[in-house]
Amino acid sequence: MKMAYEIIEGGITSPKGYKAAGVHSGIKKQNLDLALIYSEVPAKCAIAYTQNKMRAAPIEVMMKKDPKQIQAIIVNSGNANALTGSKGIYDAREMCAVTADALHIVEDNVAVASTGVISRFLPMPKIIAGIPKAVDLLNRGREADQLAARAIMTTDTKMKEAACRVKLRDGTIVTIGGITKGSGMIAPSMKVMHATTLSFVTTDAVLGKNANAKWQEMMDSSFNVISVDGDQSTNDVSMLMANGAAGGPACDNDSNFWEGVRFVAQSLAKQVVIDGEGATKLIEVHVKDAKTSREARSAARAIISSSLVKTAIFGADPNFGRILAALGNSDASFKLDEVRLNIRDDETEVTLFEKGSPTMVPASQNELDARKILKGSKVIIDLYLGVGHSSGEAWGCDLTYDYVKINADYTT
Amino acid sequence: MKMAYEIIEGGITSPKGYKAAGVHSGIKKQNLDLALIYSEVPAKCAIAYTQNKMRAAPIEVMMKKDPKQIQAIIVNSGNANALTGSKGIYDAREMCAVTADALHIVEDNVAVASTGVISRFLPMPKIIAGIPKAVDLLNRGREADQLAARAIMTTDTKMKEAACRVKLRDGTIVTIGGITKGSGMIAPSMKVMHATTLSFVTTDAVLGKNANAKWQEMMDSSFNVISVDGDQSTNDVSMLMANGAAGGPACDNDSNFWEGVRFVAQSLAKQVVIDGEGATKLIEVHVKDAKTSREARSAARAIISSSLVKTAIFGADPNFGRILAALGNSDASFKLDEVRLNIRDDETEVTLFEKGSPTMVPASQNELDARKILKGSKVIIDLYLGVGHSSGEAWGCDLTYDYVKINADYTT
Repeated sequence: MKMAYEIIEGGITSPKGYKAAGVHSGIKKQNLDLALIYSEVPAKCAIAYTQNKMRAAPIEVMMKKDPKQIQAIIVNSGNANALTGSKGIYDAREMCAVTADALHIVEDNVAVASTGVISRFLPMPKIIAGIPKAVDLLNRGREADQLAARAIMTTDTKMKEAACRVKLRDGTIVTIGGITKGSGMIAPSMKVMHATTLSFVTTDAVLGKNANAKWQEMMDSSFNVISVDGDQSTNDVSMLMANGAAGGPACDNDSNFWEGVRFVAQSLAKQVVIDGEGATKLIEVHVKDAKTSREARSAARAIISSSLVKTAIFGADPNFGRILAALGNSDASFKLDEVRLNIRDDETEVTLFEKGSPTMVPASQNELDARKILKGSKVIIDLYLGVGHSSGEAWGCDLTYDYVKINADYTT
Repeated sequence: MKMAYEIIEGGITSPKGYKAAGVHSGIKKQNLDLALIYSEVPAKCAIAYTQNKMRAAPIEVMMKKDPKQIQAIIVNSGNANALTGSKGIYDAREMCAVTADALHIVEDNVAVASTGVISRFLPMPKIIAGIPKAVDLLNRGREADQLAARAIMTTDTKMKEAACRVKLRDGTIVTIGGITKGSGMIAPSMKVMHATTLSFVTTDAVLGKNANAKWQEMMDSSFNVISVDGDQSTNDVSMLMANGAAGGPACDNDSNFWEGVRFVAQSLAKQVVIDGEGATKLIEVHVKDAKTSREARSAARAIISSSLVKTAIFGADPNFGRILAALGNSDASFKLDEVRLNIRDDETEVTLFEKGSPTMVPASQNELDARKILKGSKVIIDLYLGVGHSSGEAWGCDLTYDYVKINADYTT
C-alpha cells in the first residue's frame, strides 16, 4: 500500500513560513518554560479544546476569542494558569498582548496555552521579560523545532514531534509538522470550538473554508483515543495552523492532505502515551463487532482506564478477567457467548477467552505465550463483542510504581 | 445525641440463632477459603448484586433464584467463579446442593457467593470435600465469627466485622452482626434484586414484608459510596438475613432498627476502604450545595476515583487543583465563583479555594496546615458547589506503591 505521505525528520518549523523558539523565563527553576510559534503571515486555524468544565484561563480566553486565523502561539509550561479567577484571565490576555507587541502583529491573532501545576498564579514579570527573548530567538530548522518542543514539556521525559510531506492531488507538495507534550492528566476528549495535552500542528498548505469539522475527525482518531490516567485536564488544547505558504489549491477535500495530518496527529498522540507518567508499555485496545462505534470506543476506553488492567499488564500478569470485568462496567452491549479476547504483539497472538469460557489454561503454552506478549513494550488487545459490525480503539499505558512516585510529589 | 444502637464487640453469629464456620478446602495454597453462615430457621433475606454486566456464576445463580428466605450462605475465596461459562453455573449450583445435603435443608434456601481470581474454574472436588468439614465446625461465638470473617478474605490484610444491639420501639432488644471482605476491585454500585465486595449481615429481628427497598437505602449510604480503584467487580453481593429469633414485632418501619443496620453496613464499608489495597489513608469527600443528590454523589465519586487526587494525597501534596479538575470532569453542575474547597482532619480545617481563586498561598500557614492534614490517616474534603441544597459523599483511599505491587502480581 502506497502511503499518501512521506515521513520526514522534522517538527513545527518544517512547513514553509514558520519560525519557533523556546526560552527559560523562570517559571520553572531551570529548563525551558516558554515556547513561541510564529507564522510569517496570518494562518487559518482550527482549535480543539478540553471538555472539562473546569477550564483554565487560557482556554476561556481562546474559546471567547474563537479566532479564524492566528499568526503566533505563546505557550508556557510549569504553571497551568487554571483556577486562577479573574487574575488568571487577565494574565492570559496579557501574554497575548505582550507577544503581539513584541512581534508587531495584531493581538487577536495571538493564541495562548499553558500547562503545569493548577491553581497557582503565573509569575507575570518573568513571562513578560521572557517573551521578547523568545521573539529574538525565533528561527527555522531543527534547533528551533526542538527548543519549542522542549519548552512545552512538564513531566515528559522526551520531547515529542512529528512531520511529513504530502503530494496533493494536483501535484503540489505541502509539509505538515507538529509538536506535543503530555505525560499525566491525560484522557483528552477535545471538541473543536467549544485537551493537558497541548499539541500544535503547522502546515504550509492552503486551507479554504473552516477546517473545524476535519480537525475534529483528526482528534477523534488520535488524541481523543488516548488515556494515561483517565483524568481529563483543565488545559488540553490542540491547534492547527495553515499559512498557505506552499501555494497550490485549497486542500480542504484533498484526502492525501488529511492522511498526512492524521499521521502527524496519531504519531504525536502515541508519543504521549508511550511517555505516559511512569509507563513501561504501550497498550492498544481494539474493540470489534460492537453495536455502534460509540459503544466500541466506550468499551475500549473503559479497559484502557482500568487501574486493575493497567497494573496487571505492568506485572505481565495474564489476569485477563480484569479486561472483561472492565468491559462489563462500560455501557457497551455484548453477547457473552460470542465474546472473544485475544492479546498479541508483532509476532504472537493468543486467545484468552472465547464463547463464555476461558481458553487460557494455567501453565500451558498459551499462558506462556500470553506472558511473553505481556512482557513486551507493546501489548495489543483485540476484543470482539459479537453484537454488530462497529469498531473503536483506545491507546494507553501501564500503571507503575513510577506513576505513583511522579504524582505523589508533583508540586513539592 | 443518644444513638439508637449500642456498638458491641461481635460478628456474624452475635444475633440469636446463627452459627458460622471457616475452613481451608484447598482453593488457596494455605489460609481459610470456605465460609459457611447458617441460621437455625429459614431467615427473611434481602440481597443486593453488582451492576457489572459481566456477572460471575454465583451472581447469575442467585439472581435467577431470587430467594425470599435463606437458611445458609456458602462462600469461597481464592476463585471468583466468574467468566467460567456453563461449567461455572453448574459449579455454583453444586455448591448450594452439597451444602443443602450436608445441612439437611432445602437447596433453594442456600445462597452462594465467590471472590478471587476471575475466569478460572473452581476446584470442585476440594470444595465438595470442604463443605461437610465446614458444617461439622459450625458454631456460635467469637471464634466462629472470626473463622468465617477470615475465610472470605482475598487481598484483605484484616478481617472485617461489626455488630450492634438495638432496642426497638416496643422495647424488644435485637442484635445485628456483619462481616465483609474487599480490598481491590472495589467500586460497588449494588442494586437490590437485580456488590467484589462481599458482605453478610445477620439479625435476629423479625422482618415482615420484603426488605429490599430498605436494604437498597442501606447500600446507597454505605457500600455504594466507597471506591478503592473505580473497578466494579463481577462478584459484589451483599446479603441481609433476618431470622426473627429475638421475637417482638416486625421492625420493617422501626427507625431504631434501620439505624443499627446502617451502622453495621457503614462500619463494614469503611473497613473495606481503610484496608484498600496498599492504602495508607481514608479519604472522605463531602459534596454540598449541589443541584441534586445524584450530582453530588457523582462529583464525590469522580474525585475519590481520580488517580491524580489519590496519588497527591498519598504524597501529602496539597495539589488541590486536581480535586477541582476531577469535579470539572464529573457531570455535576457548579458555579465556579461560588465553589469552596476545604480540607480537614479532626483538629484542623483549611480553605484551599474560594470564589474562583486559590486561597492557599505557597509556604504560608495555610499550606503548612494543609500538609499537616494530608499527612494524617484520615483526610476529609468538603466541596461546596453553590448551585443548590443537595449533598452526597464518597469514601475512598490513596493510591500507593503497594497498590501497584499488589495488583501487578495478583495471580502469580
